[in-house]
Amino acid sequence: MAALGQTVVGYMDPVFVNMMEELKTLLRYAFQTGNALTFPLSGPGSVGMETCFVNLVEPGDKVVVCRNGVFGGRMIENVQRSGGTAIVVEEEWGHAIDPQKLEDTLKAHPDARLVAFVHAETSTGAQSDAAALCAVARQHGCLTIVDTVTSLGGTPVLVDAWGADAVYSGSQKCLSCTPGLSPVTFSAAAIERVKARRTKVQSWFMDLTLVLDYWGATQRTYHHTAPGNSLYGLHEALRLLAEEGLENTWARHRRHHAALKAGLEALGLSFVVAEAARLPQMNAVRVPEGVDDLTVRRTLLQEHAVEIGAGLGPLAGKVWRFGLMGWSCREDNVMAALAALEQVLPQVGHGVEAGAAVAAAHRAYAAEHLRAAA
Amino acid sequence: MAALGQTVVGYMDPVFVNMMEELKTLLRYAFQTGNALTFPLSGPGSVGMETCFVNLVEPGDKVVVCRNGVFGGRMIENVQRSGGTAIVVEEEWGHAIDPQKLEDTLKAHPDARLVAFVHAETSTGAQSDAAALCAVARQHGCLTIVDTVTSLGGTPVLVDAWGADAVYSGSQKCLSCTPGLSPVTFSAAAIERVKARRTKVQSWFMDLTLVLDYWGATQRTYHHTAPGNSLYGLHEALRLLAEEGLENTWARHRRHHAALKAGLEALGLSFVVAEAARLPQMNAVRVPEGVDDLTVRRTLLQEHAVEIGAGLGPLAGKVWRFGLMGWSCREDNVMAALAALEQVLPQVGHGVEAGAAVAAAHRAYAAEHLRAAA
Repeated sequence: MAALGQTVVGYMDPVFVNMMEELKTLLRYAFQTGNALTFPLSGPGSVGMETCFVNLVEPGDKVVVCRNGVFGGRMIENVQRSGGTAIVVEEEWGHAIDPQKLEDTLKAHPDARLVAFVHAETSTGAQSDAAALCAVARQHGCLTIVDTVTSLGGTPVLVDAWGADAVYSGSQKCLSCTPGLSPVTFSAAAIERVKARRTKVQSWFMDLTLVLDYWGATQRTYHHTAPGNSLYGLHEALRLLAEEGLENTWARHRRHHAALKAGLEALGLSFVVAEAARLPQMNAVRVPEGVDDLTVRRTLLQEHAVEIGAGLGPLAGKVWRFGLMGWSCREDNVMAALAALEQVLPQVGHGVEAGAAVAAAHRAYAAEHLRAAA
Repeated sequence: MAALGQTVVGYMDPVFVNMMEELKTLLRYAFQTGNALTFPLSGPGSVGMETCFVNLVEPGDKVVVCRNGVFGGRMIENVQRSGGTAIVVEEEWGHAIDPQKLEDTLKAHPDARLVAFVHAETSTGAQSDAAALCAVARQHGCLTIVDTVTSLGGTPVLVDAWGADAVYSGSQKCLSCTPGLSPVTFSAAAIERVKARRTKVQSWFMDLTLVLDYWGATQRTYHHTAPGNSLYGLHEALRLLAEEGLENTWARHRRHHAALKAGLEALGLSFVVAEAARLPQMNAVRVPEGVDDLTVRRTLLQEHAVEIGAGLGPLAGKVWRFGLMGWSCREDNVMAALAALEQVLPQVGHGVEAGAAVAAAHRAYAAEHLRAAA
């Protein structure tokens, strides 16, 4: 937050340009990639998503989109608005995408050029096997677009190991930075596809061939005014991530997730996602029968300063989503949320034993300590 | 800058939603409009431009674009990428758009649906008569898109008095806020046109019918995560603008422009734009014969901490652009720039009398004081 308030310098100033280079290096570490074209777009994650689609989809292209939540649905919109045809692999909300279903779909559509999926569905907390899905796509000659908005910095995102081609994320989730930036990375094959387009990219702002002249070249050309202060913030957030180290960050997310999970289950709440596909940083649990969703969320926010996410789409009113992302993934937040729930749930008719959730979380932390010491 | 570093709250938090309402009110004051749909887009001015075009242009539409600099050229790109046909009113760079030329063009193209022009060309410092151009467009049944990126908060932008339909700006010029936001305002006729579209807006992110559900409605629906910290900054910048008052702000820009102009002319530099069309906040002067553009700009930046703008497009290497925008439009900046030029110009073979430019600026300030006292 202190970095955000630093004096803005010109977006062509040598000092600023040097910071841009550092940002690219730090982002390559976060994404675990050697991709030259790795930088933050000047817009939120939705701009990251749309940039991937408008650059990689040409009118008439067939694109396989895997949908298991809200953001897969948004991908379909993006394919269609880019003039492509979306072939949808449907998966139940809260489940990981089944690579076999993708395989079957690609066999049925050998002319598909692109596969898109969400690695970590923010709407449900389900994680798909990105390595497996990318491998299937590759075997069928397709490039991949992968949404890592909620996973980057919270759970392993291994762009090069996966062999993913166009990957976007957001600054405000596990990177714990200000909202409004979308880190992206593109493989050489993705850049080749963009350069071989027969038609112009429909968006001037998102046209990678133009943005490249500012972020990619040694001789920088003005494209748009870079959001200087937000970039300062991202630089600092990524520096902190590198300081902690990805392995440590991932372990921290798992540790606090285990404690939150123990507490939520002690409250009688059940997870939407099966354990194997569960993200540590996004915990979606079912609203208990007869309990009013909005009353609970409003009371948590107004009386306990705890904000939890509402359900989206078909899950509206049916689930609560507990984010444990980046800097907010800490013991004090876990305990504050559980203690508040212990107070609020009985007020809305869901009886819980006072102290049970907090005690369960304590036991989980203790078990983790023992495991780490062993 | 302090506002930028405040704690982020959720983009659905009642406190945040209340700030959004205040932002809309403050922006209506800045734009001098009663338009209900007045809010900041989550992207730089280029997103403002593209949002206006992708929403108001449908494939096959004929759009008249007036071009007298870089940003008129970008408008043509936007028309074409939106599937429209651009009819271009060409004007010499550095000149205001001639309303008669627009009139003649509209007579020749009675099926045009839209007129677009830049109120204040950042690339040259020329100001066009927005009221006259909007009136001509209206007489021919066209809606208008007006770029006020460099004018808003520096020189009168009177959206309702002009009768402009879609107007966009940027946060980082005369509003002196962080780069990355684009304030926009739309007339009822513009909204009607968007709602009557036969085709979907090609951009999901910029689709006003979707963005409206977040910024426009009383029941807010998630569209994308709002750039919270940047919005805090804009709120504070607009509050400061309202505190000073638009009339006072405009007068301040004129006063410091007069002093800078006196100093630049004392240095033997001549303005690109004729006096009648000259913007106070963007002062473009010709690089003197035989003087190396880059050497001067680099020396000013590295040795005097004064950054001036380079020429863009056909004016690259030929002009220098002195911004006097918002908070930076102050006597100390005028004097620092002139004093630095007095030192640097003789080093590159352009002889100037030591102290002459600063003295000329002093006299201009004194004359302004006398005028104000009279």
